[in-house]
Amino acid sequence: MTSTGTDSRLKLAVLGSGRGTNLQSIMDACAGGAIPVQVVCVLSDVKDAYILERARHGGIPAEFVDAGPFRTKLEGAGEKRYIERLRHYGAEAVALAGFMRIVKRGLLDAFRGRILNIHPALLPAFPGLESWKQALDYGAKVAGCTVHLVDEGTDTGPIVVQRAVPVLEDDTPETLHARIQEQEHIAYPEALRALASRRVRIEGRRVRMGQKA
Amino acid sequence: MTSTGTDSRLKLAVLGSGRGTNLQSIMDACAGGAIPVQVVCVLSDVKDAYILERARHGGIPAEFVDAGPFRTKLEGAGEKRYIERLRHYGAEAVALAGFMRIVKRGLLDAFRGRILNIHPALLPAFPGLESWKQALDYGAKVAGCTVHLVDEGTDTGPIVVQRAVPVLEDDTPETLHARIQEQEHIAYPEALRALASRRVRIEGRRVRMGQKA
Repeated sequence: MTSTGTDSRLKLAVLGSGRGTNLQSIMDACAGGAIPVQVVCVLSDVKDAYILERARHGGIPAEFVDAGPFRTKLEGAGEKRYIERLRHYGAEAVALAGFMRIVKRGLLDAFRGRILNIHPALLPAFPGLESWKQALDYGAKVAGCTVHLVDEGTDTGPIVVQRAVPVLEDDTPETLHARIQEQEHIAYPEALRALASRRVRIEGRRVRMGQKA
Repeated sequence: MTSTGTDSRLKLAVLGSGRGTNLQSIMDACAGGAIPVQVVCVLSDVKDAYILERARHGGIPAEFVDAGPFRTKLEGAGEKRYIERLRHYGAEAVALAGFMRIVKRGLLDAFRGRILNIHPALLPAFPGLESWKQALDYGAKVAGCTVHLVDEGTDTGPIVVQRAVPVLEDDTPETLHARIQEQEHIAYPEALRALASRRVRIEGRRVRMGQKA
Protein backbone atom coordinates (compact mmCIF):
# COMPACT_ATOMS: atom_id res chain seq x y z
CA MET A 1 0.00 0.00 0.00
CA THR A 2 1.69 3.22 -1.10
CA SER A 3 0.60 6.81 -0.91
CA THR A 4 0.48 8.89 -4.05
CA GLY A 5 -0.18 12.53 -4.59
CA THR A 6 -3.48 11.94 -6.33
CA ASP A 7 -4.75 9.32 -3.89
CA SER A 8 -8.18 10.42 -2.68
CA ARG A 9 -8.39 7.78 0.05
CA LEU A 10 -8.70 8.95 3.65
CA LYS A 11 -5.27 8.87 5.28
CA LEU A 12 -5.83 7.08 8.57
CA ALA A 13 -3.58 6.53 11.56
CA VAL A 14 -4.39 3.70 13.96
CA LEU A 15 -3.40 3.88 17.63
CA GLY A 16 -3.41 0.77 19.79
CA SER A 17 -1.88 -0.83 22.84
CA GLY A 18 -2.67 -4.50 22.30
CA ARG A 19 -3.22 -7.23 19.76
CA GLY A 20 -4.74 -5.05 17.08
CA THR A 21 -7.55 -7.30 15.89
CA ASN A 22 -9.51 -4.21 14.87
CA LEU A 23 -6.48 -2.98 12.92
CA GLN A 24 -6.55 -6.28 11.07
CA SER A 25 -10.20 -5.81 10.06
CA ILE A 26 -9.42 -2.27 8.90
CA MET A 27 -6.37 -3.44 6.92
CA ASP A 28 -8.42 -6.22 5.32
CA ALA A 29 -11.19 -3.79 4.33
CA CYS A 30 -8.61 -1.38 2.88
CA ALA A 31 -6.74 -4.10 0.99
CA GLY A 32 -9.94 -5.47 -0.48
CA GLY A 33 -10.94 -1.99 -1.63
CA ALA A 34 -14.08 -2.17 0.50
CA ILE A 35 -13.37 1.25 2.02
CA PRO A 36 -11.57 4.24 0.50
CA VAL A 37 -9.08 4.39 3.34
CA GLN A 38 -5.30 4.11 3.50
CA VAL A 39 -3.66 3.29 6.83
CA VAL A 40 -0.62 5.58 6.79
CA CYS A 41 0.82 4.55 10.16
CA VAL A 42 0.22 2.57 13.33
CA LEU A 43 1.44 4.03 16.61
CA SER A 44 1.57 2.26 19.95
CA ASP A 45 2.36 3.30 23.50
CA VAL A 46 3.46 -0.29 24.26
CA LYS A 47 6.86 -1.19 22.86
CA ASP A 48 6.15 -4.86 22.15
CA ALA A 49 2.42 -4.60 21.34
CA TYR A 50 1.45 -7.10 18.66
CA ILE A 51 -0.43 -4.36 16.80
CA LEU A 52 2.98 -3.02 15.64
CA GLU A 53 4.03 -6.38 14.26
CA ARG A 54 0.67 -6.80 12.58
CA ALA A 55 1.09 -3.42 10.89
CA ARG A 56 4.60 -4.23 9.66
CA HIS A 57 3.35 -7.55 8.28
CA GLY A 58 0.90 -5.50 6.26
CA GLY A 59 3.61 -3.14 5.05
CA ILE A 60 2.41 -0.24 7.19
CA PRO A 61 4.86 2.03 9.03
CA ALA A 62 4.63 1.18 12.72
CA GLU A 63 6.23 2.97 15.64
CA PHE A 64 6.36 2.77 19.36
CA VAL A 65 5.88 6.35 20.56
CA ASP A 66 6.59 7.15 24.19
CA ALA A 67 3.36 8.45 25.72
CA GLY A 68 5.05 9.90 28.78
CA PRO A 69 4.74 9.36 32.49
CA PHE A 70 0.94 9.20 32.80
CA ARG A 71 -0.40 5.66 32.62
CA THR A 72 -3.96 6.26 31.55
CA LYS A 73 -3.94 9.45 29.51
CA LEU A 74 -2.09 11.11 26.66
CA GLU A 75 -0.99 14.57 27.73
CA GLY A 76 1.90 17.01 27.70
CA ALA A 77 5.13 16.03 25.95
CA GLY A 78 3.77 12.56 25.10
CA GLU A 79 0.75 14.07 23.38
CA LYS A 80 3.02 16.44 21.43
CA ARG A 81 5.10 13.47 20.25
CA TYR A 82 1.98 11.71 18.96
CA ILE A 83 0.73 14.80 17.15
CA GLU A 84 4.15 15.26 15.58
CA ARG A 85 4.26 11.66 14.29
CA LEU A 86 0.66 11.83 13.03
CA ARG A 87 1.52 14.98 11.06
CA HIS A 88 4.72 13.40 9.81
CA TYR A 89 2.68 10.61 8.22
CA GLY A 90 0.06 12.99 6.87
CA ALA A 91 -2.77 11.43 8.88
CA GLU A 92 -6.16 13.06 8.27
CA ALA A 93 -8.05 10.94 10.79
CA VAL A 94 -7.26 8.69 13.74
CA ALA A 95 -8.79 5.35 14.71
CA LEU A 96 -8.27 4.21 18.30
CA ALA A 97 -8.12 0.44 18.35
CA GLY A 98 -7.54 -0.75 21.88
CA PHE A 99 -5.51 2.35 22.77
CA MET A 100 -5.52 2.24 26.56
CA ARG A 101 -5.19 5.94 27.21
CA ILE A 102 -7.66 8.77 27.41
CA VAL A 103 -7.11 11.24 24.61
CA LYS A 104 -7.00 14.86 25.76
CA ARG A 105 -7.70 18.25 24.28
CA GLY A 106 -4.41 18.69 22.38
CA LEU A 107 -4.97 15.69 20.12
CA LEU A 108 -8.73 16.33 19.96
CA ASP A 109 -8.11 19.86 18.71
CA ALA A 110 -5.57 18.67 16.15
CA PHE A 111 -8.06 16.14 14.67
CA ARG A 112 -11.38 17.68 15.65
CA GLY A 113 -14.27 15.38 14.67
CA ARG A 114 -11.88 12.94 13.00
CA ILE A 115 -10.93 10.63 15.87
CA LEU A 116 -12.90 7.39 16.16
CA ASN A 117 -12.98 4.87 18.98
CA ILE A 118 -14.64 1.49 19.29
CA HIS A 119 -16.28 0.29 22.48
CA PRO A 120 -17.55 -3.25 23.14
CA ALA A 121 -21.04 -2.27 24.32
CA LEU A 122 -24.14 -0.49 23.07
CA LEU A 123 -23.34 2.88 24.60
CA PRO A 124 -24.54 4.63 26.71
CA ALA A 125 -24.92 1.23 28.40
CA PHE A 126 -21.76 -0.21 29.97
CA PRO A 127 -19.07 2.41 29.45
CA GLY A 128 -15.63 1.75 30.92
CA LEU A 129 -13.64 -1.45 31.14
CA GLU A 130 -14.66 -5.05 30.37
CA SER A 131 -18.08 -3.97 29.26
CA TRP A 132 -18.96 -7.45 27.94
CA LYS A 133 -18.55 -8.67 31.52
CA GLN A 134 -20.63 -5.76 32.80
CA ALA A 135 -23.38 -6.67 30.32
CA LEU A 136 -23.32 -10.32 31.38
CA ASP A 137 -23.38 -9.48 35.09
CA TYR A 138 -26.24 -7.04 34.52
CA GLY A 139 -28.19 -9.80 32.81
CA ALA A 140 -28.56 -7.95 29.50
CA LYS A 141 -30.05 -10.07 26.72
CA VAL A 142 -28.73 -7.85 23.94
CA ALA A 143 -25.13 -6.62 23.81
CA GLY A 144 -23.06 -5.12 21.03
CA CYS A 145 -20.46 -2.58 20.03
CA THR A 146 -20.27 1.12 19.27
CA VAL A 147 -17.98 3.15 17.02
CA HIS A 148 -18.10 6.78 18.10
CA LEU A 149 -16.32 10.05 17.54
CA VAL A 150 -14.08 10.84 20.48
CA ASP A 151 -14.82 13.87 22.60
CA GLU A 152 -13.60 15.10 25.99
CA GLY A 153 -15.61 12.46 27.90
CA THR A 154 -15.02 8.74 28.27
CA ASP A 155 -17.15 6.73 25.82
CA THR A 156 -19.47 9.71 25.36
CA GLY A 157 -18.90 11.01 21.82
CA PRO A 158 -21.42 11.03 18.96
CA ILE A 159 -22.19 7.52 17.71
CA VAL A 160 -21.40 6.58 14.11
CA VAL A 161 -22.23 2.85 14.08
CA GLN A 162 -23.69 0.36 16.54
CA ARG A 163 -24.18 -3.35 16.02
CA ALA A 164 -26.13 -5.65 18.35
CA VAL A 165 -25.56 -9.28 19.29
CA PRO A 166 -27.69 -11.60 21.40
CA VAL A 167 -26.51 -12.70 24.83
CA LEU A 168 -27.01 -16.44 25.02
CA GLU A 169 -28.13 -18.49 28.00
CA ASP A 170 -24.77 -20.17 28.52
CA ASP A 171 -22.50 -17.27 27.63
CA THR A 172 -19.29 -16.77 29.54
CA PRO A 173 -17.42 -13.45 29.38
CA GLU A 174 -15.18 -15.06 26.75
CA THR A 175 -17.92 -16.33 24.43
CA LEU A 176 -19.82 -13.05 24.62
CA HIS A 177 -16.67 -11.01 24.04
CA ALA A 178 -15.84 -13.11 20.97
CA ARG A 179 -19.35 -12.58 19.55
CA ILE A 180 -19.05 -8.82 20.09
CA GLN A 181 -15.60 -8.72 18.48
CA GLU A 182 -16.97 -10.33 15.31
CA GLN A 183 -19.32 -7.37 15.02
CA GLU A 184 -16.56 -4.87 15.87
CA HIS A 185 -14.70 -6.11 12.82
CA ILE A 186 -17.70 -5.21 10.67
CA ALA A 187 -18.56 -2.00 12.50
CA TYR A 188 -15.17 -0.31 12.35
CA PRO A 189 -14.82 -0.51 8.55
CA GLU A 190 -18.47 0.64 8.27
CA ALA A 191 -17.75 3.71 10.37
CA LEU A 192 -14.56 4.45 8.44
CA ARG A 193 -16.45 4.22 5.16
CA ALA A 194 -18.81 6.88 6.51
CA LEU A 195 -15.95 9.09 7.68
CA ALA A 196 -14.09 8.64 4.39
CA SER A 197 -17.18 9.66 2.43
CA ARG A 198 -16.71 13.08 4.06
CA ARG A 199 -20.47 13.34 4.32
CA VAL A 200 -20.70 12.81 8.06
CA ARG A 201 -22.40 15.68 9.81
CA ILE A 202 -23.41 16.03 13.43
CA GLU A 203 -26.73 17.53 14.51
CA GLY A 204 -26.92 17.75 18.27
CA ARG A 205 -25.57 14.31 19.10
CA ARG A 206 -26.98 12.60 16.00
CA VAL A 207 -24.45 11.56 13.40
CA ARG A 208 -25.97 11.70 9.92
CA MET A 209 -24.39 10.44 6.74
CA GLY A 210 -26.47 12.43 4.29
CA GLN A 211 -26.87 10.84 0.87
CA LYS A 212 -24.60 7.97 0.04
CA ALA A 213 -21.55 8.80 -2.03
CA MET B 1 -61.79 -17.49 27.95
CA THR B 2 -62.89 -19.16 31.19
CA SER B 3 -60.99 -20.45 34.16
CA THR B 4 -61.34 -24.07 35.13
CA GLY B 5 -60.05 -26.03 38.08
CA THR B 6 -57.71 -28.15 35.96
CA ASP B 7 -56.40 -25.30 33.81
CA SER B 8 -52.60 -25.31 34.07
CA ARG B 9 -52.19 -21.98 32.31
CA LEU B 10 -50.53 -19.14 34.22
CA LYS B 11 -53.24 -16.85 35.62
CA LEU B 12 -52.15 -13.39 34.65
CA ALA B 13 -53.44 -9.95 35.61
CA VAL B 14 -52.60 -7.00 33.41
CA LEU B 15 -52.36 -3.47 34.84
CA GLY B 16 -52.40 -0.46 32.54
CA SER B 17 -53.24 3.22 32.32
CA GLY B 18 -53.48 3.76 28.58
CA ARG B 19 -54.36 2.22 25.25
CA GLY B 20 -53.25 -1.30 26.10
CA THR B 21 -51.52 -2.24 22.86
CA ASN B 22 -49.32 -4.63 24.82
CA LEU B 23 -52.45 -6.16 26.36
CA GLN B 24 -53.68 -6.78 22.83
CA SER B 25 -50.51 -8.66 21.90
CA ILE B 26 -50.80 -10.74 25.07
CA MET B 27 -54.48 -11.48 24.42
CA ASP B 28 -53.68 -12.48 20.84
CA ALA B 29 -50.88 -14.82 21.95
CA CYS B 30 -53.17 -16.38 24.57
CA ALA B 31 -56.07 -16.79 22.17
CA GLY B 32 -53.86 -18.39 19.55
CA GLY B 33 -52.52 -20.82 22.14
CA ALA B 34 -48.99 -19.50 21.56
CA ILE B 35 -48.43 -19.08 25.30
CA PRO B 36 -49.90 -21.08 28.22
CA VAL B 37 -51.32 -17.98 29.85
CA GLN B 38 -54.82 -16.91 30.78
CA VAL B 39 -55.52 -13.23 31.39
CA VAL B 40 -57.84 -13.36 34.41
CA CYS B 41 -58.37 -9.61 34.78
CA VAL B 42 -57.31 -6.19 33.62
CA LEU B 43 -57.12 -3.39 36.18
CA SER B 44 -56.61 0.29 35.46
CA ASP B 45 -56.06 3.39 37.57
CA VAL B 46 -57.64 5.50 34.82
CA LYS B 47 -61.42 5.26 34.66
CA ASP B 48 -61.80 5.66 30.91
CA ALA B 49 -58.53 4.04 29.80
CA TYR B 50 -58.99 2.20 26.51
CA ILE B 51 -57.19 -0.82 27.96
CA LEU B 52 -60.40 -1.59 29.93
CA GLU B 53 -62.56 -1.50 26.83
CA ARG B 54 -60.03 -3.64 24.96
CA ALA B 55 -60.18 -6.23 27.75
CA ARG B 56 -64.00 -6.31 27.77
CA HIS B 57 -64.01 -6.74 23.99
CA GLY B 58 -61.88 -9.84 24.59
CA GLY B 59 -64.23 -11.14 27.28
CA ILE B 60 -61.80 -10.39 30.11
CA PRO B 61 -63.04 -8.93 33.43
CA ALA B 62 -61.88 -5.30 33.52
CA GLU B 63 -62.09 -2.88 36.42
CA PHE B 64 -61.13 0.64 37.25
CA VAL B 65 -59.51 0.43 40.68
CA ASP B 66 -58.91 3.65 42.59
CA ALA B 67 -55.16 3.91 43.18
CA GLY B 68 -55.49 6.59 45.83
CA PRO B 69 -54.21 10.12 46.20
CA PHE B 70 -50.61 9.61 44.96
CA ARG B 71 -50.24 10.34 41.27
CA THR B 72 -47.11 8.38 40.45
CA LYS B 73 -47.04 5.45 42.84
CA LEU B 74 -49.24 2.69 44.18
CA GLU B 75 -49.17 2.74 47.97
CA GLY B 76 -51.30 2.54 51.08
CA ALA B 77 -55.04 1.97 50.70
CA GLY B 78 -54.82 2.05 46.90
CA GLU B 79 -52.19 -0.69 46.91
CA LYS B 80 -54.36 -2.76 49.27
CA ARG B 81 -57.31 -2.42 46.88
CA TYR B 82 -55.20 -3.68 43.97
CA ILE B 83 -53.89 -6.65 45.95
CA GLU B 84 -57.43 -7.51 47.00
CA ARG B 85 -58.74 -7.45 43.42
CA LEU B 86 -55.74 -9.46 42.13
CA ARG B 87 -56.44 -12.12 44.77
CA HIS B 88 -60.13 -12.04 43.97
CA TYR B 89 -59.35 -13.00 40.38
CA GLY B 90 -56.79 -15.62 41.42
CA ALA B 91 -53.91 -13.88 39.66
CA GLU B 92 -50.59 -15.71 39.95
CA ALA B 93 -48.56 -13.11 38.09
CA VAL B 94 -48.89 -9.48 37.03
CA ALA B 95 -47.91 -7.81 33.76
CA LEU B 96 -47.56 -4.04 33.81
CA ALA B 97 -48.53 -2.69 30.41
CA GLY B 98 -48.27 1.06 30.43
CA PHE B 99 -49.19 1.30 34.11
CA MET B 100 -48.05 4.81 34.96
CA ARG B 101 -47.34 4.25 38.65
CA ILE B 102 -44.35 2.94 40.55
CA VAL B 103 -45.19 -0.33 42.25
CA LYS B 104 -44.13 -0.45 45.89
CA ARG B 105 -43.19 -3.11 48.39
CA GLY B 106 -46.68 -4.29 49.31
CA LEU B 107 -47.52 -5.48 45.81
CA LEU B 108 -43.96 -6.66 45.19
CA ASP B 109 -44.10 -8.84 48.30
CA ALA B 110 -47.50 -10.24 47.32
CA PHE B 111 -46.21 -11.28 43.86
CA ARG B 112 -42.48 -11.63 44.49
CA GLY B 113 -40.63 -12.40 41.26
CA ARG B 114 -43.88 -12.58 39.33
CA ILE B 115 -44.41 -8.98 38.24
CA LEU B 116 -43.22 -8.06 34.76
CA ASN B 117 -42.85 -4.67 33.15
CA ILE B 118 -41.97 -3.61 29.62
CA HIS B 119 -39.74 -0.66 28.84
CA PRO B 120 -39.16 0.85 25.38
CA ALA B 121 -35.35 0.83 25.53
CA LEU B 122 -32.45 -1.58 25.89
CA LEU B 123 -31.99 -1.14 29.62
CA PRO B 124 -29.83 -0.05 31.40
CA ALA B 125 -29.73 2.55 28.61
CA PHE B 126 -32.49 5.16 28.66
CA PRO B 127 -34.56 4.42 31.76
CA GLY B 128 -37.46 6.72 32.57
CA LEU B 129 -39.94 8.43 30.31
CA GLU B 130 -40.02 8.71 26.50
CA SER B 131 -36.95 6.56 26.14
CA TRP B 132 -37.30 6.33 22.35
CA LYS B 133 -36.87 10.09 22.28
CA GLN B 134 -33.91 9.84 24.65
CA ALA B 135 -32.32 7.27 22.33
CA LEU B 136 -32.86 9.47 19.29
CA ASP B 137 -31.50 12.58 21.00
CA TYR B 138 -28.48 10.61 22.21
CA GLY B 139 -27.80 9.53 18.64
CA ALA B 140 -28.06 5.79 19.37
CA LYS B 141 -27.98 3.61 16.24
CA VAL B 142 -29.57 0.62 17.96
CA ALA B 143 -32.68 0.91 20.15
CA GLY B 144 -35.10 -1.68 21.45
CA CYS B 145 -37.25 -2.87 24.30
CA THR B 146 -36.85 -4.75 27.57
CA VAL B 147 -39.20 -6.99 29.54
CA HIS B 148 -37.96 -7.23 33.11
CA LEU B 149 -39.04 -8.44 36.50
CA VAL B 150 -40.05 -5.51 38.67
CA ASP B 151 -38.03 -4.73 41.78
CA GLU B 152 -37.87 -1.77 44.16
CA GLY B 153 -36.03 0.41 41.62
CA THR B 154 -37.28 2.13 38.48
CA ASP B 155 -36.50 0.07 35.37
CA THR B 156 -33.82 -1.85 37.26
CA GLY B 157 -35.15 -5.41 37.72
CA PRO B 158 -33.66 -8.58 36.21
CA ILE B 159 -34.11 -8.73 32.44
CA VAL B 160 -36.16 -11.54 30.89
CA VAL B 161 -36.23 -10.52 27.21
CA GLN B 162 -34.67 -7.77 25.11
CA ARG B 163 -35.20 -7.12 21.42
CA ALA B 164 -33.19 -4.67 19.34
CA VAL B 165 -34.24 -2.45 16.43
CA PRO B 166 -32.14 -0.21 14.18
CA VAL B 167 -32.44 3.56 14.43
CA LEU B 168 -32.74 4.87 10.89
CA GLU B 169 -31.25 8.03 9.46
CA ASP B 170 -34.58 9.80 9.07
CA ASP B 171 -36.34 8.53 12.18
CA THR B 172 -38.60 10.82 14.12
CA PRO B 173 -39.64 9.99 17.69
CA GLU B 174 -42.87 8.61 16.21
CA THR B 175 -41.33 6.30 13.62
CA LEU B 176 -38.78 4.96 16.10
CA HIS B 177 -41.42 4.45 18.78
CA ALA B 178 -43.58 2.51 16.32
CA ARG B 179 -40.66 0.25 15.36
CA ILE B 180 -39.93 -0.43 19.04
CA GLN B 181 -43.60 -1.17 19.77
CA GLU B 182 -43.65 -3.84 17.06
CA GLN B 183 -40.90 -5.61 18.97
CA GLU B 184 -42.65 -5.05 22.31
CA HIS B 185 -45.58 -7.02 20.96
CA ILE B 186 -43.25 -9.97 20.32
CA ALA B 187 -41.16 -9.53 23.47
CA TYR B 188 -43.98 -9.51 26.02
CA PRO B 189 -45.50 -12.83 24.94
CA GLU B 190 -41.95 -14.29 24.81
CA ALA B 191 -41.29 -13.22 28.39
CA LEU B 192 -44.67 -14.53 29.54
CA ARG B 193 -43.96 -17.88 27.91
CA ALA B 194 -40.77 -18.06 29.98
CA LEU B 195 -42.59 -17.08 33.18
CA ALA B 196 -45.40 -19.54 32.47
CA SER B 197 -42.89 -22.36 31.96
CA ARG B 198 -42.08 -21.90 35.66
CA ARG B 199 -38.45 -22.58 34.82
CA VAL B 200 -37.24 -19.02 35.22
CA ARG B 201 -34.50 -18.75 37.81
CA ILE B 202 -32.39 -15.77 38.77
CA GLU B 203 -28.65 -16.01 39.41
CA GLY B 204 -27.29 -12.66 40.53
CA ARG B 205 -29.05 -10.47 38.00
CA ARG B 206 -29.06 -13.05 35.21
CA VAL B 207 -32.44 -14.54 34.35
CA ARG B 208 -32.05 -18.10 33.11
CA MET B 209 -34.75 -20.25 31.59
CA GLY B 210 -33.15 -23.64 32.16
CA GLN B 211 -34.19 -26.33 29.69
CA LYS B 212 -37.22 -25.69 27.58
CA ALA B 213 -40.45 -27.23 28.78
